[in-house]
Amino acid sequence: MSADDFPLIGAAAARAREAARVLRTLPTETKDAALVAMAEALLERADEVLAANAADVEAAAADGTPESVLDRLRLTPARVSGVADALRQLVALPDPVGDVVRGSTLANGLQLRQVRVPLGVVGIVYEARPNVTVDAAGLCLKSGNAALLRGSASAHRTNTALVAVLTEAAEKAGLPAGSVALLPADRASVGELLNARGLVDVVIPRGGASLIQRVVTESRVPVIETGVGNCHVYVDASADPAMAEAIVLNSKTHRVSVCNSAETLLVHRDVAFLPRLLTALAEAGVTLHGDDAARAAHDGVLPATDEDWATEYLSLDMAVRVVDDLPGALDHISRWGSGHSEAIVADSARAIADFTAGVDAAAVLVNASTRFTDGGEFGFGAEIGISTQKLHARGPLGLPELTSTTYVVTGSGHTR
Amino acid sequence: MSADDFPLIGAAAARAREAARVLRTLPTETKDAALVAMAEALLERADEVLAANAADVEAAAADGTPESVLDRLRLTPARVSGVADALRQLVALPDPVGDVVRGSTLANGLQLRQVRVPLGVVGIVYEARPNVTVDAAGLCLKSGNAALLRGSASAHRTNTALVAVLTEAAEKAGLPAGSVALLPADRASVGELLNARGLVDVVIPRGGASLIQRVVTESRVPVIETGVGNCHVYVDASADPAMAEAIVLNSKTHRVSVCNSAETLLVHRDVAFLPRLLTALAEAGVTLHGDDAARAAHDGVLPATDEDWATEYLSLDMAVRVVDDLPGALDHISRWGSGHSEAIVADSARAIADFTAGVDAAAVLVNASTRFTDGGEFGFGAEIGISTQKLHARGPLGLPELTSTTYVVTGSGHTR
Repeated sequence: MSADDFPLIGAAAARAREAARVLRTLPTETKDAALVAMAEALLERADEVLAANAADVEAAAADGTPESVLDRLRLTPARVSGVADALRQLVALPDPVGDVVRGSTLANGLQLRQVRVPLGVVGIVYEARPNVTVDAAGLCLKSGNAALLRGSASAHRTNTALVAVLTEAAEKAGLPAGSVALLPADRASVGELLNARGLVDVVIPRGGASLIQRVVTESRVPVIETGVGNCHVYVDASADPAMAEAIVLNSKTHRVSVCNSAETLLVHRDVAFLPRLLTALAEAGVTLHGDDAARAAHDGVLPATDEDWATEYLSLDMAVRVVDDLPGALDHISRWGSGHSEAIVADSARAIADFTAGVDAAAVLVNASTRFTDGGEFGFGAEIGISTQKLHARGPLGLPELTSTTYVVTGSGHTR
Repeated sequence: MSADDFPLIGAAAARAREAARVLRTLPTETKDAALVAMAEALLERADEVLAANAADVEAAAADGTPESVLDRLRLTPARVSGVADALRQLVALPDPVGDVVRGSTLANGLQLRQVRVPLGVVGIVYEARPNVTVDAAGLCLKSGNAALLRGSASAHRTNTALVAVLTEAAEKAGLPAGSVALLPADRASVGELLNARGLVDVVIPRGGASLIQRVVTESRVPVIETGVGNCHVYVDASADPAMAEAIVLNSKTHRVSVCNSAETLLVHRDVAFLPRLLTALAEAGVTLHGDDAARAAHDGVLPATDEDWATEYLSLDMAVRVVDDLPGALDHISRWGSGHSEAIVADSARAIADFTAGVDAAAVLVNASTRFTDGGEFGFGAEIGISTQKLHARGPLGLPELTSTTYVVTGSGHTR
């Protein structure tokens, strides 16, 4: 496949490929200077961006877009300033490129070093939030990658303005042309991106379950899967009641629309404080969907079906199931979990060890809220998403996860 | 998708999934005991395996299979003993499962550990060599993974006998049933494997370019791409003549049928010893395919076309191109290379630095033969292949590359 096979994205991908050859060799200070210049340009030219955004919001509102989606789409001077700050914060993070991951001198004297290098050309497919345009461009550039950004049609005027500001500043600061490009918002441009093997090194979807599903099943380009979180909190028989209540409430209600919030509560049948726990959830406004035992423990619990176990509610709903023992909780998580974040509240070291060993997920949280699975909370700085796949990177994706490695083998005429 | 959607492989995949839940928690000593038992059983029951193999070889010979392929298919008592030894050697390698890759205590007191865990269910698709059956099973088990093996139809009797011996010994030693399974050799079983998202965690092809191409373009299951090596040796103007000759000859002729042998020689136009270099290659039996400058430097060089630059010969053929400068070599490699192994012979530190920074490949070899890109040479012990992709693992795939990670986050009632 060559660039000519992709009418919508081929030219941008070919320029990005050329840009990537330069980006991989740029020193950190050049990349950092560009990030600062991009942040300054966003503030200086905020009016352009806000005007474009107002047109997007107006058009979306005229189409009857619900207010919650309009809010995600909307930029304000404070939000523009926020994304500019995020670019500046990238300057403070260490550049992963050039890190020596492993090194040794072999018995024959060959010097072996495994060195981090950029991935190359990274495609990001995302939905309405225009802040992703800036975040993704910044993360890719800091890690030496070229970025092909495919945002939603509803934000296309905003994204066009943002990318114009960013690319002009970046090029003036010494980055190669084509380092960041916005792809057409046509539906077909996603299809091209997913087939552009050899032109694009990796595609990362950021958005809802249906977008992610399309990308992971259709793509011939390697994908880093992010985001779907059907997360559980298991309350063991050994759990402290107050700790269990605090962690369950926090996991469910701290912010309901995010992938690391909890969707299902699993409770050991010997937990005597189940009625109090369900009352606390109900008082916090949570609609409960439970099995027979949960419904017997609290009035007003709706009957749960398999669909409840399978659903990432992203709302103030929670499924509740009483399990016979810890293996029962592990079986439930193995069947229904999405491999994102699974929490246990327990005081038994054996229960904690069995849960930690038995759960297959990006993160296992012991006596802590599921909400801690987050690049910022983990101290990684910015993140481009949370990977729920097993290859390459699992969990929060920081700058090192946007790199590959090369083995550099240095000899003095070595032959076999 | 569930196991019922896959008539040829679904039942084995479902058993492998169950086995993987047990395998991930087994201590190293149990896995090592199973590897020893498998090695012993192979020696004890070598006659069964050799009889099955004789039937495969006879059938293949009757079909007119060329001797080189028959040789790959053929087992001898010495070869059986060799694969048994390979299993024993795995015992000596460290178990990657449980390794703490990264760990810290966060400001809020949360303890963060990133721990290696098995991938789960690994599918291997491979061609005629029956030793892959044993190697792949051993590598997967040592790293706590269940293995679904899809070998070629021509080796199916041999593979069936091998897997019967291996699984019986493994189960007797305490591994769960279903840990290793041989899939039907039908063409359709590969298609099922490549679509078994959720049942299979990763597919690794081991074989020729067409097999790899089918797997990487068709698979909906994440793939680790291995093997195609269109490798170059670049001889810089600063190269020592004797060193250049030794490295070029070794890279090309040490073993021609493997992915880390060199296919194209790139020579700086100021290299005065080009005629002597080409004479040495011709005297070693290499058929040369060159551009005009190469043809002018040596008699009998065939004219090279783009197809020569693109071809992984895997034979005593070599393409030769004279380049104006080091950027010319980088451009050629960027256009035609497969991202496997690229070597430079040079004495100039600047040339070495520019080459190392500018080449995007799994391995860059400085004053050393391309033949060193190898798990054994790198000191990793056994390898399941050499990855030429950028995600997850690049270069020789040892045991750590057959794992994923989980973040284990331990608090004492932490909430956000």
